Amino acid sequence: MSDHLTKILLSEDQIPTHWYNIAADLPISAPPHLHPATQQPVKAEDLAAIFPPGLIEQELSTERWIEIPEEVREIYRLWRPAPLYRAYRLESALGTRARVYYKYEGASPIGSHKANSSVPQAYYNKLAGITRLTTETGAGQWGAALAFACSVFGLACDVWQVRNSYETKPYRRMQMETYGATVTPSPSARTETGRAMRERFPDTPGSLGMAISEAVEEAARDPHANYSLGSVLNHVALHQTVIGQEALLQLESVGERLPDHIFACTGGGSNAAGISFPFLHRNLTAGANVRVVGCEPAACPSLTAGEYRYDFGDTANQTPLLKMYTLGADFVPDPVHAGGLRYHGMAPLVSAAYDQKLMDAVAIKQRDAFAAGVLFARAEGILPASESNHAIAGAVAHLQAAEDDGDGQVVLIGVSGSGQLDLPAYADYLSGQMLDA
Amino acid sequence: MSDHLTKILLSEDQIPTHWYNIAADLPISAPPHLHPATQQPVKAEDLAAIFPPGLIEQELSTERWIEIPEEVREIYRLWRPAPLYRAYRLESALGTRARVYYKYEGASPIGSHKANSSVPQAYYNKLAGITRLTTETGAGQWGAALAFACSVFGLACDVWQVRNSYETKPYRRMQMETYGATVTPSPSARTETGRAMRERFPDTPGSLGMAISEAVEEAARDPHANYSLGSVLNHVALHQTVIGQEALLQLESVGERLPDHIFACTGGGSNAAGISFPFLHRNLTAGANVRVVGCEPAACPSLTAGEYRYDFGDTANQTPLLKMYTLGADFVPDPVHAGGLRYHGMAPLVSAAYDQKLMDAVAIKQRDAFAAGVLFARAEGILPASESNHAIAGAVAHLQAAEDDGDGQVVLIGVSGSGQLDLPAYADYLSGQMLDA
Repeated sequence: MSDHLTKILLSEDQIPTHWYNIAADLPISAPPHLHPATQQPVKAEDLAAIFPPGLIEQELSTERWIEIPEEVREIYRLWRPAPLYRAYRLESALGTRARVYYKYEGASPIGSHKANSSVPQAYYNKLAGITRLTTETGAGQWGAALAFACSVFGLACDVWQVRNSYETKPYRRMQMETYGATVTPSPSARTETGRAMRERFPDTPGSLGMAISEAVEEAARDPHANYSLGSVLNHVALHQTVIGQEALLQLESVGERLPDHIFACTGGGSNAAGISFPFLHRNLTAGANVRVVGCEPAACPSLTAGEYRYDFGDTANQTPLLKMYTLGADFVPDPVHAGGLRYHGMAPLVSAAYDQKLMDAVAIKQRDAFAAGVLFARAEGILPASESNHAIAGAVAHLQAAEDDGDGQVVLIGVSGSGQLDLPAYADYLSGQMLDA
Repeated sequence: MSDHLTKILLSEDQIPTHWYNIAADLPISAPPHLHPATQQPVKAEDLAAIFPPGLIEQELSTERWIEIPEEVREIYRLWRPAPLYRAYRLESALGTRARVYYKYEGASPIGSHKANSSVPQAYYNKLAGITRLTTETGAGQWGAALAFACSVFGLACDVWQVRNSYETKPYRRMQMETYGATVTPSPSARTETGRAMRERFPDTPGSLGMAISEAVEEAARDPHANYSLGSVLNHVALHQTVIGQEALLQLESVGERLPDHIFACTGGGSNAAGISFPFLHRNLTAGANVRVVGCEPAACPSLTAGEYRYDFGDTANQTPLLKMYTLGADFVPDPVHAGGLRYHGMAPLVSAAYDQKLMDAVAIKQRDAFAAGVLFARAEGILPASESNHAIAGAVAHLQAAEDDGDGQVVLIGVSGSGQLDLPAYADYLSGQMLDA
């Protein structure tokens, strides 16, 4: 049977020992983050109120390989190396001669790739003597990942969840609480920002912007607390590169060549960075020619319809200015189901790679994303996350267009998470009621 | 790092080639199922109206090893071999010197061990020319497993779901529909039984008994349809023995000895049979001394408080008479969260093993089960299914009682599924409101 493995597994001693930092290899250096008041590049001390030294160093680093602490690799063992699947049954369903693989991050304890960064973030904060982390969450994937990581390292975890999600999507809140986190609907009475918002908009359903402001305010106020962000920033993209490094090794282990095309969903950018940067490293330093396609929601198309300019990371304009593809910090996307992709900007490192033509992007409508997700689930069994469906749809459209070629191309799809907690979105699609956005 | 593996993995060519049938090795043969009218042992032809020949043969077989068809092993590859974890972090949390392992079935596409039997059941029905399977489901785990298997083999899947679950636990229904199944709240207007029940009890929330009756009626009516059951019967216990066979091989692969104790949750009995029978085989044929502990809910304690006698498998008294530990076919357990364990009887093969003192049993209250589940989730990351929490609680109580011994005993826990869709039960526990049953 071993001639046609469905799951390509690695042993735990093959968990990467270093994260890969594409900042070292970009042909043109990524523009620095700027201090919003001075417009000068941010310095380590500007970030020290809310981030620990270990993460600040990574955020500003241009070193190519950054060692993964043994304590972090120890926790990664709970689910890493993550499996790479050969999608035999999807290939049959599509009638393609392409060899299709998918890297699956949904088997992490919290069901998505987010744990790859929450664990080191909790670790470096613990190391710095921090006892509590604050964060914001929308649908709750990042909040759940941080709650898990905090439970591992014995930190308190304080999550502000957008009120509308808190009330209508209770499963993720329950998941965060099971890991011991405190979850507060935002805007809350616990912070100045929150109280001001509640006074001004008594019936507000909340927003990610407000929740960020509350979490940052609380972290800045308490010397024992720090703030934690689940995407966008350089150190988050860095942590996620374990995904692509493993996929490289897995393809090699079965004698497969480098993929011709990689499809990854892009929201804040950390998942796309994670799976693609180690392959871009091969393009940049070893003459490889892997095409990377970021698959973004048509409702929030920062790469395909945004501008490349300095913008704030949050709606309250409190963060450093980041050079990124952006739809504007006040852009409010349609309420599509892929909550993890509803972000106005794109990670500065992904933005730089896209600007330098190192990767492509396509915008995917959510009905097409879910059509691909249902096809995938019925063929492969695994139910993908709403976000991941965008990558699958990008790959399916590509393979269907290339159907007559039958050229034996190699396609790699990043399936960033499980859709078990996204079932209402599938039901919405199957009922024919899904918003055509 | 390889000296202390967290996940013990096998390759796909180590998926078992045969199912293990304990009926061949029981010191006293398991009493046969009886025809309810004649009180004589059922014959193959008595079962032919609703089961295909391949499954009937397995139901009545006393052959020790039954070959797994290559087409079934091919689908098993999507998630098997399932991982065996060394629970290092749980050991630390408990302060025990025991070596604790858990076999995790929650990584199957539908999140539980049920797919181990739904796939061969769909396969043998397909082979027999059947085009549609009917079944009942309560909370929905079995329905989801059969929906997945039917989507794999191109069969229609018709699930009657207890109305109360249909209305209050919509995620599993959405999961079934995503795999293409038709889900009907029971009692329904689609069957005679259903119509009669609706007339008699217009406001009934439904019951498993009614749903079974509807699914069986529909299968018996349509020559192209068969009925499918997710536990209790011999062929279902048989299919699940891939779990224990893999665990045996995994322990051997790291040089571990046989476990001193195995803890498995018991509802209908297929999960407990699956993980334990291959170890009981070693006890019965090779002088091993593995203690197996069935962990049942205190609210539905068929082994620890039931009688060993012939009883019906359903409340409508339509099935063959099964010799089993039973609380009576009309027993209605308290509405505990572990829906998969709320069954009045115990699989005849598990019952025979228990009667012959080949295994032990304990009854676990659900608050204790969830206390153990939360401890497990915070230590190991994985959130166990409500049912699995009973096995974990059994193991934790045992380890805490043995704490001072520090004797390096080996404990194996069967974690039969993921609790992602059981989060409301965790919330109920954490809120302090959980029924003390």
